Amino acid sequence: KLMMSLQEVNPRVRGIRLSSQSGLHSLTENNTRDIIQGAPQSFKEQINISSGDPQRAGMKPISFVRQVLAVCLCPELLSDEHLPLDVRLRALRLLEACDGESVGSYTASSGLPHVRQTIAEFIMKRDEGVPAYAKNIFISSGAQRALMVIVKLLSGGEGRLQTGVLIPHPCPHGLLPLLDEAGVMAVPYRLIEEENWAVDLSELERALTTARGRCEPRAIYISNPGNPTGHLQDRESIEEVIEFVSTERLLLLVDEVYQDSVYAPNKEFISYKKVLFEMDEHLRDTVELVSFHSLSCACVAECGLRAGYMEAVNMDPGVMHFVDTMLCTDINAPVTGQLALDLMLSPPGPGDPSYNTFVHETLVTRATLAQNSQRALKLLNDLPGMSCRPAMGGIYLYPRLDLPAEIKEQANMLGLEAVVLYCQMLLEEEDLIVGAGDDGTSGSHYLRLCILVPPDTLEEVLSRLSSFHLRLSDRKLNRIV
Amino acid sequence: KLMMSLQEVNPRVRGIRLSSQSGLHSLTENNTRDIIQGAPQSFKEQINISSGDPQRAGMKPISFVRQVLAVCLCPELLSDEHLPLDVRLRALRLLEACDGESVGSYTASSGLPHVRQTIAEFIMKRDEGVPAYAKNIFISSGAQRALMVIVKLLSGGEGRLQTGVLIPHPCPHGLLPLLDEAGVMAVPYRLIEEENWAVDLSELERALTTARGRCEPRAIYISNPGNPTGHLQDRESIEEVIEFVSTERLLLLVDEVYQDSVYAPNKEFISYKKVLFEMDEHLRDTVELVSFHSLSCACVAECGLRAGYMEAVNMDPGVMHFVDTMLCTDINAPVTGQLALDLMLSPPGPGDPSYNTFVHETLVTRATLAQNSQRALKLLNDLPGMSCRPAMGGIYLYPRLDLPAEIKEQANMLGLEAVVLYCQMLLEEEDLIVGAGDDGTSGSHYLRLCILVPPDTLEEVLSRLSSFHLRLSDRKLNRIV
Repeated sequence: KLMMSLQEVNPRVRGIRLSSQSGLHSLTENNTRDIIQGAPQSFKEQINISSGDPQRAGMKPISFVRQVLAVCLCPELLSDEHLPLDVRLRALRLLEACDGESVGSYTASSGLPHVRQTIAEFIMKRDEGVPAYAKNIFISSGAQRALMVIVKLLSGGEGRLQTGVLIPHPCPHGLLPLLDEAGVMAVPYRLIEEENWAVDLSELERALTTARGRCEPRAIYISNPGNPTGHLQDRESIEEVIEFVSTERLLLLVDEVYQDSVYAPNKEFISYKKVLFEMDEHLRDTVELVSFHSLSCACVAECGLRAGYMEAVNMDPGVMHFVDTMLCTDINAPVTGQLALDLMLSPPGPGDPSYNTFVHETLVTRATLAQNSQRALKLLNDLPGMSCRPAMGGIYLYPRLDLPAEIKEQANMLGLEAVVLYCQMLLEEEDLIVGAGDDGTSGSHYLRLCILVPPDTLEEVLSRLSSFHLRLSDRKLNRIV
Repeated sequence: KLMMSLQEVNPRVRGIRLSSQSGLHSLTENNTRDIIQGAPQSFKEQINISSGDPQRAGMKPISFVRQVLAVCLCPELLSDEHLPLDVRLRALRLLEACDGESVGSYTASSGLPHVRQTIAEFIMKRDEGVPAYAKNIFISSGAQRALMVIVKLLSGGEGRLQTGVLIPHPCPHGLLPLLDEAGVMAVPYRLIEEENWAVDLSELERALTTARGRCEPRAIYISNPGNPTGHLQDRESIEEVIEFVSTERLLLLVDEVYQDSVYAPNKEFISYKKVLFEMDEHLRDTVELVSFHSLSCACVAECGLRAGYMEAVNMDPGVMHFVDTMLCTDINAPVTGQLALDLMLSPPGPGDPSYNTFVHETLVTRATLAQNSQRALKLLNDLPGMSCRPAMGGIYLYPRLDLPAEIKEQANMLGLEAVVLYCQMLLEEEDLIVGAGDDGTSGSHYLRLCILVPPDTLEEVLSRLSSFHLRLSDRKLNRIV
């Protein structure tokens, strides 16, 4: 008998429900071609657009960010005149902000004071003067890690007293495992697909009412711009949510990591905090809000460097002390990631040697995102049995899929969700990995597609997806005849 | 009333006992000079040797590591002929190991396969051929994070069924908060100071016996070379522990992060795994062992880059699946840190352009550590009321302190531990931060001193510590007379 056997693993850990995403990932390692017999085998180069990983797909990093980090790591480059002057000056300033002037030293667990100050200044500028303070900013190894800290503070209770958190359905694919690990009950509220995935007040009220008695709902999680639905809330919708949380006394957790990637014409991102500070005084002074942002956002997309932050608004200083305590057991976010946050939020300005390149690189990313979204939307809506709502921001499209009855039967026999089988077949026949959307109870099927990829890659993705999808429809017809 | 009030914070989080270390850190931010009246104020530059942060103290990073990372971040440097050829070739190889050939992409949650393979090869070489496999290696954001994952898997139960973990006393200062957060009961076993902090079998048995009935002990944590005591276990001592865990059916968690820093003459590090594989077959095939290592070790000391790993030996594959699940909620360790692990464990070899520099830099660090240890040991043992056991490895000394009765009384009145008051006074009078050791129940007092600092800094540290300590003894005498 093993000392640490499977049966003895912490039940909460055993209860973590990994998303169908992860199932698909492991498929890429196992040979499962024999599951579906007679399928044409693909020998193409694999493309994976199931999750947001722009640099894996071939998107380029921001040169300024990378150059400054290189100099910080290797200060002998400070005298390398091939590197722009503003790059070297910035590296010097960042090194001075590090203990021992080295990225190899620990930082405070909530992050380097210099970077927290830069973040506060960025927020204040973004929100046109609404005050932001470094002491309310906590840097972590990514936005998900920051969210975990808050959820663990909220966590507690059992049975009807277990903490509940309202979450959108559909939701970001890492969210459910996170809540499972923290021992918190997910209370889903539906986004309204017919209204381009809008947040609906009566649905929030329904979700909350049905949850009470089953658990103790203490917070609501919002993703805006929406992951994976691409919706963007306007001021009115945000005001509704703020009034709702105030009435119902919920902590408001807002994932705003795609704030830099609103691309629909005449739309722009407005932060929950800004809206809150333009509402009545009793709301402004009482609604507790935590907003999350990340280095893994659209334009910088430094997913591998692992850094993000949260800003706490109206939070009890005693509670913030425990945020710090929780971050302590993580030691600190990686210093390279912390410095990259500084560079992302305080980029070169007009007149700086790196300015033109920076502006060009950022514009290319935004344009790619907007064009890819339009291009993919049109093609997806032209496919039979596929329909997709237009997105306004973020990096995903989330098309609905009407699957042939035969696929559903076959999936049933194999003990798989139908959409997972669809994704498996797509992988095996076309070497294309897309995300299997979360079906929930509606019986509908969805795909999650990351569209922040080079335009050539998108064309290849759409071509593979179309061939497969049309072939599947034909196969169905063949068998029915 | 706030939505998230202090009273509602998860009781487990509220129960996290931060080490006296953290209390001292916050002292550096608050002005507490008025606590102790009449103390001479210091206007020196602050020195902090309370924890292991060599680069903050002025130790230099390994050039090869930093140069390769700089090129990985900024691949335009691949053609920079000022950088050694092996640096550029290695960067090329590491970039090929990253998805999209970019450090900006996510990796698998257990780390880049290429780096896991490098780690396995390092272990096999270190252990003179004992096999090691990449599939048993899990990369994380530091050794502490890896330990947290294992402890959370073990965690569970309440009251007499609560999971317990045997830990040394004294122990590394981050260990207790970690166990608190995981909801695991710490079961201390004393290290024997008189025998230079040896691990004692009968003390392990005593600790285990008294713990049973109060909790469910399921694992033992060992720090070797010892943090903060600097002891090193020999083969015989390791064999004793292995037989003990086998008999008692405990999971063996071995913190071996200072394996690169054994400096006592005629002593060398031997891994638990190697000893295990040279013991009887029934032990070799059954004892479950997890060994931890870190980028924050002595010679590379890249604390800020945040990476470490663990190797699991004889662990149930089903349990390892949940290790992966837990790491999933962390997304992945920072890629720069992962690559630095690769460079640390597979450094330049003879004939490579960077070899001589690498060897020189490593030797300087080791020599500094050995000389500092001797120098500090002698001085500490010359001070009245201070005595320190010789250390064989690691980066700390842990002197015992006999405090004047008056300090104890004063501390009592202020509601502080006496050693914490000593450290506060030292900070305020000499701007020197040392770690307040863990008193436990023995009534003795200890200091934790990191000795991996430049020799000049050590001289300054010793001079400040001596002045303060002698002044304190004099003050006592004055009052008694």
